[in-house]
Amino acid sequence: MSPRPEDTATLLVSCPDRRGLVAALAQLLYGHGANILDADQHSDASVGQFFQRIRFDLSEMHTDRGTLERAIAEVAERFAMEWSLSYGSRRKRMAIFVSRYDHCLHDLLWRHRAGELDCDLPLVVSNHRDLAGTVEQLGHHLHVFAITPETKREQEEAQLALLAEHSVDVIVLARYMQVLSAEFVARYPNRIINIHHSFLPAFVGGKPYHQAHERGVKLIGATAHYATADLDEGPILEQAVVRASHRDSVEDLVRKGRDVERVALAAAVRAHLEDRVIVHGRRTVVFD
Amino acid sequence: MSPRPEDTATLLVSCPDRRGLVAALAQLLYGHGANILDADQHSDASVGQFFQRIRFDLSEMHTDRGTLERAIAEVAERFAMEWSLSYGSRRKRMAIFVSRYDHCLHDLLWRHRAGELDCDLPLVVSNHRDLAGTVEQLGHHLHVFAITPETKREQEEAQLALLAEHSVDVIVLARYMQVLSAEFVARYPNRIINIHHSFLPAFVGGKPYHQAHERGVKLIGATAHYATADLDEGPILEQAVVRASHRDSVEDLVRKGRDVERVALAAAVRAHLEDRVIVHGRRTVVFD
Amino acid sequence: MSPRPEDTATLLVSCPDRRGLVAALAQLLYGHGANILDADQHSDASVGQFFQRIRFDLSEMHTDRGTLERAIAEVAERFAMEWSLSYGSRRKRMAIFVSRYDHCLHDLLWRHRAGELDCDLPLVVSNHRDLAGTVEQLGHHLHVFAITPETKREQEEAQLALLAEHSVDVIVLARYMQVLSAEFVARYPNRIINIHHSFLPAFVGGKPYHQAHERGVKLIGATAHYATADLDEGPILEQAVVRASHRDSVEDLVRKGRDVERVALAAAVRAHLEDRVIVHGRRTVVFD
Amino acid sequence: MSPRPEDTATLLVSCPDRRGLVAALAQLLYGHGANILDADQHSDASVGQFFQRIRFDLSEMHTDRGTLERAIAEVAERFAMEWSLSYGSRRKRMAIFVSRYDHCLHDLLWRHRAGELDCDLPLVVSNHRDLAGTVEQLGHHLHVFAITPETKREQEEAQLALLAEHSVDVIVLARYMQVLSAEFVARYPNRIINIHHSFLPAFVGGKPYHQAHERGVKLIGATAHYATADLDEGPILEQAVVRASHRDSVEDLVRKGRDVERVALAAAVRAHLEDRVIVHGRRTVVFD
Repeated sequence: MSPRPEDTATLLVSCPDRRGLVAALAQLLYGHGANILDADQHSDASVGQFFQRIRFDLSEMHTDRGTLERAIAEVAERFAMEWSLSYGSRRKRMAIFVSRYDHCLHDLLWRHRAGELDCDLPLVVSNHRDLAGTVEQLGHHLHVFAITPETKREQEEAQLALLAEHSVDVIVLARYMQVLSAEFVARYPNRIINIHHSFLPAFVGGKPYHQAHERGVKLIGATAHYATADLDEGPILEQAVVRASHRDSVEDLVRKGRDVERVALAAAVRAHLEDRVIVHGRRTVVFD
Repeated sequence: MSPRPEDTATLLVSCPDRRGLVAALAQLLYGHGANILDADQHSDASVGQFFQRIRFDLSEMHTDRGTLERAIAEVAERFAMEWSLSYGSRRKRMAIFVSRYDHCLHDLLWRHRAGELDCDLPLVVSNHRDLAGTVEQLGHHLHVFAITPETKREQEEAQLALLAEHSVDVIVLARYMQVLSAEFVARYPNRIINIHHSFLPAFVGGKPYHQAHERGVKLIGATAHYATADLDEGPILEQAVVRASHRDSVEDLVRKGRDVERVALAAAVRAHLEDRVIVHGRRTVVFD
Repeated sequence: MSPRPEDTATLLVSCPDRRGLVAALAQLLYGHGANILDADQHSDASVGQFFQRIRFDLSEMHTDRGTLERAIAEVAERFAMEWSLSYGSRRKRMAIFVSRYDHCLHDLLWRHRAGELDCDLPLVVSNHRDLAGTVEQLGHHLHVFAITPETKREQEEAQLALLAEHSVDVIVLARYMQVLSAEFVARYPNRIINIHHSFLPAFVGGKPYHQAHERGVKLIGATAHYATADLDEGPILEQAVVRASHRDSVEDLVRKGRDVERVALAAAVRAHLEDRVIVHGRRTVVFD
Repeated sequence: MSPRPEDTATLLVSCPDRRGLVAALAQLLYGHGANILDADQHSDASVGQFFQRIRFDLSEMHTDRGTLERAIAEVAERFAMEWSLSYGSRRKRMAIFVSRYDHCLHDLLWRHRAGELDCDLPLVVSNHRDLAGTVEQLGHHLHVFAITPETKREQEEAQLALLAEHSVDVIVLARYMQVLSAEFVARYPNRIINIHHSFLPAFVGGKPYHQAHERGVKLIGATAHYATADLDEGPILEQAVVRASHRDSVEDLVRKGRDVERVALAAAVRAHLEDRVIVHGRRTVVFD
């Protein structure tokens, strides 16, 4: 029943809400012989915006991909749609950026090997040598870019060149402890996923577990979000929490936090890789 | 932007999965001037079944309801669909059955008053007098049907007559400690919602909190499900859990359990009232 | 086996950590024939502070309460302990303050009747008439103190007089939408429990659900804390969260939030009533 | 303030509840100059049993360990206590048993390296070759014992010999798909930790995710428990759940389940390694 993944495509659409949108797209796809496998939509009444994700089967299309894309572009213009189309036959290419903490890195590499993350993983990048052995051991090479205030600009240029050379689509900051410049971020809009080690917007900035301990909170959390030029302010993809108590030292919070960081980040990465995310302003629509 | 609730309708569809389903329904509604507000669908590959919920706006339809219904019936026959259509202009009518525990009753009555449950509430029924005062105090009348093995059949007949007289659509067993006969259940298929005070299928049968205590579980739960002739075996609508520990006596488990029972039952009742549930075999599709 | 509640007492102790503390108190109680039922302790290495809660049985004491208290005072002085002793034979007396939202009020009154909250409930106070009917219906009288900037001081004086007259020990702000003056708060240090409708310190201040919606968070929460002169900054007693998604409007967040507010507030009130809380600086120790 | 871990010891005690227990042990330790760092106790009124965990500092003891142990034995006899004493200076030695699924193995090895699990890890054992490469890559050697019904007895003997040779204290069955014989289990009573991939007692036996899918549950879980001769019936150490929905195929449940299996198993192993568990009948006391 289920088609082969490489015969499918996913269309993401966002536009001002108005009548006839669902029918227009359903009819268009039907007319080209593209069978809808899965359609989910959302209307946000507070901003009058419509969002839709349609996954469809290309294997019995009457027309070719180019024709289909031109048809979508026509409808999109009529309805002022922003849209993107991604083909199952082209796997996304992911880079992982890491510094000294290896829990998210380990987790992502394990999930990748286990088949949970449908992507190629051509690059692991760090601003420190520390994890070179670990990364090697897990079958990857670590690209190290030592960064000082003086070298930051040129090192980021070198990183961008490497990313371009490997055709990277999405960057995961797996506890990368180096703020990316606005220029860098602008090159991958809504394609850089960061994990912040707190329940944002509580505890922005550095040392959130120390802040949480000091404030005496009873839950601690983690937030996966798209990186933007404003640190800790990007659109939120996923959040998770775990109970804490007076018995937890800062070290305990750090340990507990690692578990929720891994889970929140992995869920966010999966959602991105499966084309389930649409960003609108500061907010995300994350289809199930 | 949002239409008035009474101008909307919700269509639920279940049928063998095949191509063209989404387009057929979208096109049909568009053709009658019914604007789709919200559409969610699900294909269960394991059983080859397709499920869809479409909420639409009737206020600018070109045709009348009868014509629309006939058109849906035609499409439904072509695709072997089971379907139901409910109009926002007709509120569902709910009866609550209760015995001696009042936490779910209180919670449902409060939620009803707070506007969380979009229904009329013409009947509260019990097999005991105990809660008559409570129910009265909260502005309802308690209909008492004392039941013994000898009187069960005739009392159920009387209950069914009362339910029919008040045009009840859905019955909520809010800790009703009396097993309904198969005949009674058959009169309201997938329209009787029960709350079982355990995480089913763990701890079926009586005294689940005692069983949970004896087994030393670290989480206790509650399960809201449609009642079927097989006790504790009906399609599950919602489940919730809460942590337990060695410190919890049976009484503590009962107390903690009340909180998750209330939450699970309320969520299930909301889902039913909002036409978000389709039953297929022993399982439910509960759209968000 | 278990003694009658009225034969028990609970000792709470906080002091600089040093050796011999546990033995000193255990020995003292043993020497008076007070049998320890339950003892829990915590050492916070980050601040070098020791905390202990001891519940004991008075029924076979060799000495009287006065003698026991003098003995405790002696040990306390030696170890620079802050301590409090509460007797099971004297139930705490609670006042509930409420404004226009009734979900926490309803929940607390129901829990009180169900025996979950071991206290007397002599007073329900509001700054609005709106809930007078509801409170009446539930068997209590609503004391209304309309408050304007001009009348605030005198109305708070009148409230304090009423609280004193009814020997109130603990005040629960069950969504009381009126900021208490620093003078008022100072009269009930660590004895006023507030529920804030967000996961503090995220979304301090007004309209937290609007803030949460605007920020696009994926979890919303509630925080029960002791009220202090600094709004939203008091020691946290309990926090709870629930998942949110892009589908949730502000109204949905408000509805979901009500459920976690009720649960977090009830847990905090129980902990306080059962003498399980010690405040140290901005943080709480909440024994299980 | 905090003593070095190697200067600490942990005493676990279980006995019929009676007065004077807490004072007797506190006094005993004080008399030997052993400073109590942490004491937690629990009385289970339903069975009249008392449980206590005391962690203390040995660095300023007046007497030697032998003398202390003899003194404890004396008190223990008086009160009919079962007790065990473990010294921080002797790390526990853990063996991991694994079959073909590597998620729990990976997780435990990572946590061990990260310092979350305070133990030596001399052995990784399997009944299959499959994970030899993975285990090697992570810096350990895999001991393979192929098992058929005919060779089971002798292979278990060989495993037991290997375990004895490496002085293993605790065995973790990290998805080990081979039932241990009653004789094997009897050699490590309450020292073999298993992870069952369901919320026990729901879905005992094989293929619990298939069972869960078939039953249409809305939460799936994992249970870490001590292995006993009765499969899936041992004392429960930890349980965790995650939400499921109609959208989850069996494969999705398996994937989601891996996350909760890892978390539940890791928590159980930590509790065991930190001497926070006492078993009484079928139930556990797991101190925080």
